[in-house]
Amino acid sequence: MPDPAGDRAAAGREAEEVARVGLLGRGTVGNAFHDLVTERAAEIEAVAGRRPEIAGVLRRSEGEFDDLLDRSEIVVEVIGGTEPARDYVLRALRGGRHVITANKQLIAQHGDELFDAAREAGVQLRFEAAVAGVVPVIRVIQESLPATEITKVFGIVNGTTNFILTEMATTGASYADALGRAQELGYAEADPTEDVGGADAAAKMAILARLAFHTPVRLDDVGFEGITAIQPDDLAYAKELGLSLKLLGVAERIGDGISVRVFPCFLYRGHPLAPVEGPFNAVMVEAPTITEVTMSGPGAGGPETATAVLGDLVSILAGKAPVHEPRRELEIVRDVNSAFYLYLEVADRPGVLAQVADVLGRNEVSVRSVVQRGLGDDARLVMVMHEGPEARFYSALDEIATLDFVRAQPRAIRVIEEEFV
Amino acid sequence: MPDPAGDRAAAGREAEEVARVGLLGRGTVGNAFHDLVTERAAEIEAVAGRRPEIAGVLRRSEGEFDDLLDRSEIVVEVIGGTEPARDYVLRALRGGRHVITANKQLIAQHGDELFDAAREAGVQLRFEAAVAGVVPVIRVIQESLPATEITKVFGIVNGTTNFILTEMATTGASYADALGRAQELGYAEADPTEDVGGADAAAKMAILARLAFHTPVRLDDVGFEGITAIQPDDLAYAKELGLSLKLLGVAERIGDGISVRVFPCFLYRGHPLAPVEGPFNAVMVEAPTITEVTMSGPGAGGPETATAVLGDLVSILAGKAPVHEPRRELEIVRDVNSAFYLYLEVADRPGVLAQVADVLGRNEVSVRSVVQRGLGDDARLVMVMHEGPEARFYSALDEIATLDFVRAQPRAIRVIEEEFV
Repeated sequence: MPDPAGDRAAAGREAEEVARVGLLGRGTVGNAFHDLVTERAAEIEAVAGRRPEIAGVLRRSEGEFDDLLDRSEIVVEVIGGTEPARDYVLRALRGGRHVITANKQLIAQHGDELFDAAREAGVQLRFEAAVAGVVPVIRVIQESLPATEITKVFGIVNGTTNFILTEMATTGASYADALGRAQELGYAEADPTEDVGGADAAAKMAILARLAFHTPVRLDDVGFEGITAIQPDDLAYAKELGLSLKLLGVAERIGDGISVRVFPCFLYRGHPLAPVEGPFNAVMVEAPTITEVTMSGPGAGGPETATAVLGDLVSILAGKAPVHEPRRELEIVRDVNSAFYLYLEVADRPGVLAQVADVLGRNEVSVRSVVQRGLGDDARLVMVMHEGPEARFYSALDEIATLDFVRAQPRAIRVIEEEFV
Repeated sequence: MPDPAGDRAAAGREAEEVARVGLLGRGTVGNAFHDLVTERAAEIEAVAGRRPEIAGVLRRSEGEFDDLLDRSEIVVEVIGGTEPARDYVLRALRGGRHVITANKQLIAQHGDELFDAAREAGVQLRFEAAVAGVVPVIRVIQESLPATEITKVFGIVNGTTNFILTEMATTGASYADALGRAQELGYAEADPTEDVGGADAAAKMAILARLAFHTPVRLDDVGFEGITAIQPDDLAYAKELGLSLKLLGVAERIGDGISVRVFPCFLYRGHPLAPVEGPFNAVMVEAPTITEVTMSGPGAGGPETATAVLGDLVSILAGKAPVHEPRRELEIVRDVNSAFYLYLEVADRPGVLAQVADVLGRNEVSVRSVVQRGLGDDARLVMVMHEGPEARFYSALDEIATLDFVRAQPRAIRVIEEEFV
């Protein structure tokens, strides 16, 4: 005899075990995520107790968002850009849906609004894939080190520029040729401005600084420089000095404030970030109680990014996690200490080094090493300074640029001189 | 007018907001954890919604465990060793308490029993600090990559041996002298057997293999060798060949099975683990969808290990997480492929290299590079092979050891020859 009550209960149980996921966007990451969720559904169910199912896919200009939202319990946003992504994510959060996004600009520019919406609705907003792809830096800062007094987070958070710098260093290629090669291989977009100019890394550092220091960080709090002015010469001299060049994002506590910046920077051999090459990303976290923890891996790629999204999905299915909430408002510090590399094209005549050294000395900038080389009438003077206030170095630099034997605009690049175990 | 009902409600709320933590053991880690929890209580409350309080401390031979258990909602075990730690942890789990332990031997030897007890009681058992200290490898495998088809987990999971090998490589010290230096600095215990013999690393690899592959792994499934036979000569020749020596733990999927081993191993320059020096640990995780993710940091130390315990505590206060449950039973594979370094003391006479090469060739072992050097009557023949089945190499090695010009026991050490980006 049929048992309609039993049937209804069974149907109810089944419905509860299935977690319906609405997918917004179906580019490389969206496709990879769709495949991965389908392929690994049984494993996800074994780990998290519930089986995910794609409830529907919203392509850029197709589909009805409201209809998809109705059918979804969790929304995955991989459209990119700020609109309509922001509108969709806000409506999903306010409608009580957990949201996972891979969208760094969205979190960097509209984080406060989104975190508030998630907190009010009592839902999760996860975004591991927004910074450093599958490298689990968001989870480690938020969940492994949430009560740790982090003093510094820094690293290589843009794979395009790291590929270009690696290519220039290993082949001697010009910036333009290395960029062309990156575009051929799909590591750089047709319009690479956001990556090579540093804005992409700046957005990621705004997110990391906010989470590490529990303070609001706006995108225009982050000073950034890119790699477009780097010359093959810089890399050739650097090799002689035992240095490798990276585009670094650095967020650090300074006194009662913070500084968040992105700039090209030389690292001495032995620095944990020096061997990170090609399109890889790496992030270091420092705190008095942890010394330093370093994480590295692919910073982009469809399956890699989709795996980061999948980790967030499993966490949502498995239980709750904190939604970010600023606990204090730290000041943004602008004058920080740095060591610099300085490249000068000068006339090859006596007294040049003495005059440059005199300017540096008067500005209390201390020199660590010098390479000088004659080239006919010209010479190249390459120096590495010890760390000191940036303002002093820049004041010396302005003075040096006006010396009559200096034949081209001097090039200054920061150097990290810490020695590591 | 007083409002007793309101007072009771307030008292009830306060009691609920405080999370009482029973601390078992008060050595270096226990003390550091005690300090850290006290110091960071406000931050923990801000993140997790509840303020932790140490309900009591059980020293090795003092205090009443049952009494402490009654007063605790969460138990932190940092006694070490298997008994009485196992008994205490089981009683805590069965009594419905969440447990955090830093005890690798406990998890490696009694994991099944403990995971079962946690699952039955519906409580959490967390153990980030048991492997690689504050390096968040347990969380990343369990929470970032829980549904990812991990193919390999490997790395440097013992800081004592990494310190000794770094010391031997940089100063030319003998094994005994480097061990003495490690003991002086507190990196090695008075009886260093468990570390230098590889058993400590084997226990950690058993845990990592279990979590990565979702299969039971017993301690005697893990083959291990230590570093006690390493000679300064090996490191000197290795430097010429561009190699650095690490004690590696390797857990990998091979066909339908797994292999879990610990052995000293040479790495080519450019390998992500090659620059990991001193007492640091580093673990790499590989999967087709993630390429590889590398994590490194201090593998021990009071504040560092206590920070890992604190991360687990905040996660317990913030919400639920999966308790490990094996999903399959994979076979342990014993015959694997490796590349080897071979060090031979031979008579310095013609035909020696030809005869050695002949033995290798007949056993289908292919040579990658050779260094030969005369020393009076003797010569040193140092070779690096390409990767191949270990059984073939060992069969060639047995044959080589019997050649009449071979003057001492040959030394063979594995080499990782993969090239990295």
